[in-house]
Amino acid sequence: MSASTEPSSVHHKVNFSNPRSFATSIKSGVKETFFPDDPFRQISNEPSSILRAKKAIQYFLPIFEWLPKYNFGLLRYDILAGVTIASLAIPQGISYAKLANLPPILGLYSSFVPPLIYAIFGSSKDLAIGTIASGSILLASIFGEAGLMEDNPTLYVHLIFTATFFTGLFQVALGFFRLGILVDFLSHSTIIGFMSGAAAIICLQQLKGMLGLIHFTSRTDVVSVMRSIFSQTHEWRWEPAVVGIIFLCFLEFTRYLKRKKQSLFMVSAVGPMVTVVVGCIFAYLAHAEKHGIQIVGHLNKGINPPSIKYLNFDPKYLPVTVKAGIMTGILALTEGIAIGRSFATMKNDQIDGNKEMIAFGTMNIVGSFTSCYLTTGPFSKTAVNYNAGCKTAMSNVVMSLCMMLTLLFLAPLFSYTPLVALSAILMSSMFGLIKYEEAYRLFKVDKFDFCICMTAFVGIIFFSMDVGLMLSVGLSIIRALLNVARPPIINLGNLSDSTMYRDVEQYPLANRVPGVLILQLGSPIYFANCTYVRERISRWIEDEQSISNSKAGDIEHVILDMGGVTSIDTTGIEMLLEVRKNIERKGIKVSLTNPKIEVMEKLMLSNFVETIGRDSVFLSINDAVEACRFTLRS
Amino acid sequence: MSASTEPSSVHHKVNFSNPRSFATSIKSGVKETFFPDDPFRQISNEPSSILRAKKAIQYFLPIFEWLPKYNFGLLRYDILAGVTIASLAIPQGISYAKLANLPPILGLYSSFVPPLIYAIFGSSKDLAIGTIASGSILLASIFGEAGLMEDNPTLYVHLIFTATFFTGLFQVALGFFRLGILVDFLSHSTIIGFMSGAAAIICLQQLKGMLGLIHFTSRTDVVSVMRSIFSQTHEWRWEPAVVGIIFLCFLEFTRYLKRKKQSLFMVSAVGPMVTVVVGCIFAYLAHAEKHGIQIVGHLNKGINPPSIKYLNFDPKYLPVTVKAGIMTGILALTEGIAIGRSFATMKNDQIDGNKEMIAFGTMNIVGSFTSCYLTTGPFSKTAVNYNAGCKTAMSNVVMSLCMMLTLLFLAPLFSYTPLVALSAILMSSMFGLIKYEEAYRLFKVDKFDFCICMTAFVGIIFFSMDVGLMLSVGLSIIRALLNVARPPIINLGNLSDSTMYRDVEQYPLANRVPGVLILQLGSPIYFANCTYVRERISRWIEDEQSISNSKAGDIEHVILDMGGVTSIDTTGIEMLLEVRKNIERKGIKVSLTNPKIEVMEKLMLSNFVETIGRDSVFLSINDAVEACRFTLRS
Repeated sequence: MSASTEPSSVHHKVNFSNPRSFATSIKSGVKETFFPDDPFRQISNEPSSILRAKKAIQYFLPIFEWLPKYNFGLLRYDILAGVTIASLAIPQGISYAKLANLPPILGLYSSFVPPLIYAIFGSSKDLAIGTIASGSILLASIFGEAGLMEDNPTLYVHLIFTATFFTGLFQVALGFFRLGILVDFLSHSTIIGFMSGAAAIICLQQLKGMLGLIHFTSRTDVVSVMRSIFSQTHEWRWEPAVVGIIFLCFLEFTRYLKRKKQSLFMVSAVGPMVTVVVGCIFAYLAHAEKHGIQIVGHLNKGINPPSIKYLNFDPKYLPVTVKAGIMTGILALTEGIAIGRSFATMKNDQIDGNKEMIAFGTMNIVGSFTSCYLTTGPFSKTAVNYNAGCKTAMSNVVMSLCMMLTLLFLAPLFSYTPLVALSAILMSSMFGLIKYEEAYRLFKVDKFDFCICMTAFVGIIFFSMDVGLMLSVGLSIIRALLNVARPPIINLGNLSDSTMYRDVEQYPLANRVPGVLILQLGSPIYFANCTYVRERISRWIEDEQSISNSKAGDIEHVILDMGGVTSIDTTGIEMLLEVRKNIERKGIKVSLTNPKIEVMEKLMLSNFVETIGRDSVFLSINDAVEACRFTLRS
Repeated sequence: MSASTEPSSVHHKVNFSNPRSFATSIKSGVKETFFPDDPFRQISNEPSSILRAKKAIQYFLPIFEWLPKYNFGLLRYDILAGVTIASLAIPQGISYAKLANLPPILGLYSSFVPPLIYAIFGSSKDLAIGTIASGSILLASIFGEAGLMEDNPTLYVHLIFTATFFTGLFQVALGFFRLGILVDFLSHSTIIGFMSGAAAIICLQQLKGMLGLIHFTSRTDVVSVMRSIFSQTHEWRWEPAVVGIIFLCFLEFTRYLKRKKQSLFMVSAVGPMVTVVVGCIFAYLAHAEKHGIQIVGHLNKGINPPSIKYLNFDPKYLPVTVKAGIMTGILALTEGIAIGRSFATMKNDQIDGNKEMIAFGTMNIVGSFTSCYLTTGPFSKTAVNYNAGCKTAMSNVVMSLCMMLTLLFLAPLFSYTPLVALSAILMSSMFGLIKYEEAYRLFKVDKFDFCICMTAFVGIIFFSMDVGLMLSVGLSIIRALLNVARPPIINLGNLSDSTMYRDVEQYPLANRVPGVLILQLGSPIYFANCTYVRERISRWIEDEQSISNSKAGDIEHVILDMGGVTSIDTTGIEMLLEVRKNIERKGIKVSLTNPKIEVMEKLMLSNFVETIGRDSVFLSINDAVEACRFTLRS
């Protein structure tokens, strides 16, 4: 070892002890990868087995965590929010079911059973459950391609139930295998872009109601929407526009009051409900329909009939139902989890992706047994829920009960709701979600993050929600991979009168040690960056040699500081051996400093340490430099 | 700053100076990402402009680098290798062209022009150019699906030329935009698995020739091949088997001699050629065909006619030709570059992925003008080339000249080559490439690398070459992403009488500083690991608190060592702010140490440093600990 006389290294040596067993290291790897939150910790920490069982039930069924603490104060908010989203669920359910070429009543059924299931299993406080536009269109297009739409409407409905069943099965499987890690790949920048883009297209969609248009594009991109609006200027009506703008001004005013004085927030929370009720009364009294103000229209009575007997596992249709199930399952999960996560972030809450997947899956399986089709947490409904001040998943239960009452008795009352009132509620919810200031902050701090954000925004505006999300996530992953592929390799110098070695670019006062080149390798050393690391090291040596040619002394030692290397694979070890061979061929000695436990294990197992010699591995840069100085002097 | 009295920190302060300009940092980012080898360095380093021009030409056309140094000694080897691969190119060209439903003569044309082009532009010394089985089948299937095969054979040939043209265009574009970084994602483990798997399936394919079978599956997986062989046991012939085994024994004997005594390697190198010539003579004299020993058969005369006028850009066929061009282009690049890289690794050479892409692209564009179809560096031919002792790309020129002579005059002579002789040559080349020892070494050192290797191997054996390669690369990327998503976060302790802080798990002698928790964050902090980092830090604090409850003193300070953090994005900064808020809520103070230049820039730009206060950022862990001790005492 080093012949140093520094007190710091007299009695400390590199730990060359034997690697941990395979079982130990694999166990710790699996735990960190799939159970990073150590979910069973609080369960196993409890002293008695009754408390442990209680904690376990609370973990698997979040309802038992929040329900016992539930009180009337919270219920007030949840009733308001629940009733408000129920009033949205009716027109949304009808229009989305039409998008999927299904009977409108299925859309209403889908807002009754699934929210109840989600309230038991779901961990988000803000998510409102319902059908989504993109999923509905996707279902229609998959079955349409297979030519199963026109021939037999009953069969079509049964196949949709079957696809919903497979969606649920797929989602539960993902959650069971702890693939919630996938959700970690939605970055802050992606979510900002995604929310702003979604808010923008939902506002655009509302122009249909505002202008009283009857025919409208089923696409969401700005080009289609604009073409659809401006191709029928002769169909525009002034009546709905006036009513809509009045409602919008009213809603914006309530929100303004809330911003101004926090105690007036109840005014803002009841705003949407007031709008719906006033709208109904107005439409009933003024015979609004005759003036071009469309209303929701007649609705059937009766709650969900069972549909489990209709599930169709005929091998002939299996490929298409499974495909539809998996594709819409992914879409619904991405949308639902992205949205749940976005709103949780605003409240500094956390969402457990694995639990969410199981909750979504269970609700779709049960839904497929009770005449519902694909449900998730749609953006618009959740935003309204959040703005109406929901506190727990109880708002979903309230919505569900409202839907039940509606289905049983109240349908005729809600049938007078003017569509333009719903448009105004949606638009008003969306305005606050287009986060231009946040985007500007990203632009200032990190240009690449800004690109990721804008990719999501532009992708959603000009293509569709799923395309925007995919592109943005893809770009984030490329960025992560680029970072793996191009780790920084830094030239270190000594800060005078200390044992500290720092980046010479960052600290210009740091002195290069004569004859010694100290390089700090960062990040994991992997197949993806081996070529780069090799090139970069040889470039540093060439650079240093061309400098030292003009000054005194040539390089005699290269010290590779491994302190920042978090892991290494076999390609990386091969590369290090090769680099050492190439450098030593030039008459330069190579030493390593401070490999971490995981790296050291690999280096021991691959006989790397024995090949380069234990006396070339040091505990600190200072030890290595002292050892180099010793040979330089001699 | 710290009130420390240690000499090491008296006059050194954290560098809070202004961030670099956007232009500077983007320039350095682009350079490190796309030009890590600094290709123009040696050009710009030259003193005179003539030398610079010379270096530039050598860089863009590698032939000018090796041709001036070329001598007769090297030529000897290259002639041998070139003639050997030419003797392989004939039967391979014919059979692969048949796979693509093309006239057999196109296969021969494809071994004449493209190798000449590659010799000028290519940077690999071992790659032998020719058509590939997988690419040929893929072309046939794409055009077959579009229903363009049977109707009009002439049109079909013209569309294949057009697709080849697009392949070339696509490949040149990839190279021009410096996307050679893609090649970095082929890991050592992938390549070992890929080579072993490819060698195994090529051996299996040779059973056709060995058993004298006429009908054989066009698939390469082991199940199809075995079914094809054992479904026609009545067709097996003993004559080719005997001849084949004799040839195989002869070839293995020459290789044995080479291993035994290095000076006898010429015996091994001429082995394949001797086999072909002896085979021809034997087949001619013994009327081998009548005894079930198939020969190559009659061949047309004349070199490549031009085909540029046949390129068909009819919009009707454009989608299918572009699709075929891009898909086969990717396949050919992955195979060609993977193979070039594999053989270069064996010789400790390097392959410039970008230059290779341009070379492949140019050769396919020129090929499409001269009646050739898709070419790349096929595995079998390259292995034979390598084993025959090729030294430079001159072996391709030699092969090309041989093909020209063959096309012009010698076709009838080669028409007597027994297929079983070619099978023996291929099998003998493959045996050395199944690297079980290497796989065992991977198993010992890194189980995950072993999985990646076996995925490639099993994928190729049971599915196809492209599936195996994709799965293996996919797994490697998942591993890289997992590493990004789960960076190690380590608890540090102080080594007594020193300023060193090391992992307490790795160095059990390291002492925890009472009241202070020191955590080292590793790797970049990113959207993908923010949730994990937050969870892990709070788990460390909980762990430490449950320990210190039993011992003396509670945690009052958390020090986050950022020395190993190579970069951070906005999601990461948000997370750090949140973590700090959560920790400080518990009455614990947070400080950071030693952020690197890139991280410090982001922290300054986002006002993070101002938020937490400049006096919470330290240059070293020791400074931070001293500062903590100061407040602990007071």
